[in-house]
Amino acid sequence: MGQGISVDQLTPLPIVIGVAGGTASGKTTVSEQILACISPHQIAFLQHDSYYREESHLSLAERATRNYDHPQSLDTPLLVTHLLSLRRGEAVDVPIYDFATYSRRAESRRVDAAPVVLVEGILIFAERALRELMDIRIFVDTDADIRFIRRLRRDMFERGRSLDSVVEQYLKTVRPMHLEFVEPSKRYANVIVPEGGRNQVAMEMIISRVQKLLDEAG
Amino acid sequence: MGQGISVDQLTPLPIVIGVAGGTASGKTTVSEQILACISPHQIAFLQHDSYYREESHLSLAERATRNYDHPQSLDTPLLVTHLLSLRRGEAVDVPIYDFATYSRRAESRRVDAAPVVLVEGILIFAERALRELMDIRIFVDTDADIRFIRRLRRDMFERGRSLDSVVEQYLKTVRPMHLEFVEPSKRYANVIVPEGGRNQVAMEMIISRVQKLLDEAG
Repeated sequence: MGQGISVDQLTPLPIVIGVAGGTASGKTTVSEQILACISPHQIAFLQHDSYYREESHLSLAERATRNYDHPQSLDTPLLVTHLLSLRRGEAVDVPIYDFATYSRRAESRRVDAAPVVLVEGILIFAERALRELMDIRIFVDTDADIRFIRRLRRDMFERGRSLDSVVEQYLKTVRPMHLEFVEPSKRYANVIVPEGGRNQVAMEMIISRVQKLLDEAG
Repeated sequence: MGQGISVDQLTPLPIVIGVAGGTASGKTTVSEQILACISPHQIAFLQHDSYYREESHLSLAERATRNYDHPQSLDTPLLVTHLLSLRRGEAVDVPIYDFATYSRRAESRRVDAAPVVLVEGILIFAERALRELMDIRIFVDTDADIRFIRRLRRDMFERGRSLDSVVEQYLKTVRPMHLEFVEPSKRYANVIVPEGGRNQVAMEMIISRVQKLLDEAG
């Protein structure tokens, strides 16, 4: 169990659910659908993205050129610590990452312990210490071309980026990191969901299971 | 819907669940676990394997050399007819295929209609008319080397076949047909289950969903 804790120190609840998948695979839609079906006080939601490493010691120009698709860009040990706290019933203070300045904001977001903990992120199955804390690992699997098209649209129309810059970043870091870390981490999934949140049959299966676990726990 | 029927002619029950996957992927274990969790009078079980085409017009030598891994070797239209009957609440007579003589036995097996219909087979997602009759499509995905090792053991130790004959059949028909028909049919799955019946997290998810559907139907 990575962090030197043993299973019997952990109570059966909370249930920790991980939702992973490549960029624009539909992970967030899956997470949103789970969140929509569980009462808010019963679920704690963490995104790996909030845990980008603090790099205020670097210049803004240096920060902008870092590879943000590599696992090392994320402070996974802090996320592991937070998951362990939530499993012990303790609230955590999740960092708020500012994507404009590539640094953590001074304030953080308080997340209370809850019977279900949902963790979302591209790379959450890539690190053993993290994935072993999850009871249900869901990988959202969408074809690479469809993911690229979605990302292109989102980055051009919602974020005002140029076609060239989207393609360059995709080829330079997103795609190689996907092939090196994300795709191989699919092997650790308990269930693979093609097409993500639009896959109603899979969503109903996931939600049935979570509701049953919550019912059993009273 | 392939067979010229419209959706509104079909009652919400039965729920038709399909379990597909390559040879020795663990499909049968998944099916057995579903069967074990649902009372026998609530579930009808059909295997595509029972529908091998009757080839008594061929000599035994000719039958032995046919490609039994090609979709054409199966009488899929009959399975489609049977599923439509079960959906209308009518019992069906499933053929019993004799693998020793490559032909159908004179007798058949009566399967009564039930609120859940479970269909299992390597190629059940490969044909549109068949897969469109399924409400939940589960693909059991196990690495090809592991599947080969399982098949080798089973064919050598349980069926007394030689190493050479297992390898030859695998390379000559099983593998090419897998790549041509089985692997591409994975795309029609609603959920992909790595490792099959040993994957308890996925099994609990599938079974929760089926039990919830049965409960809702009263």
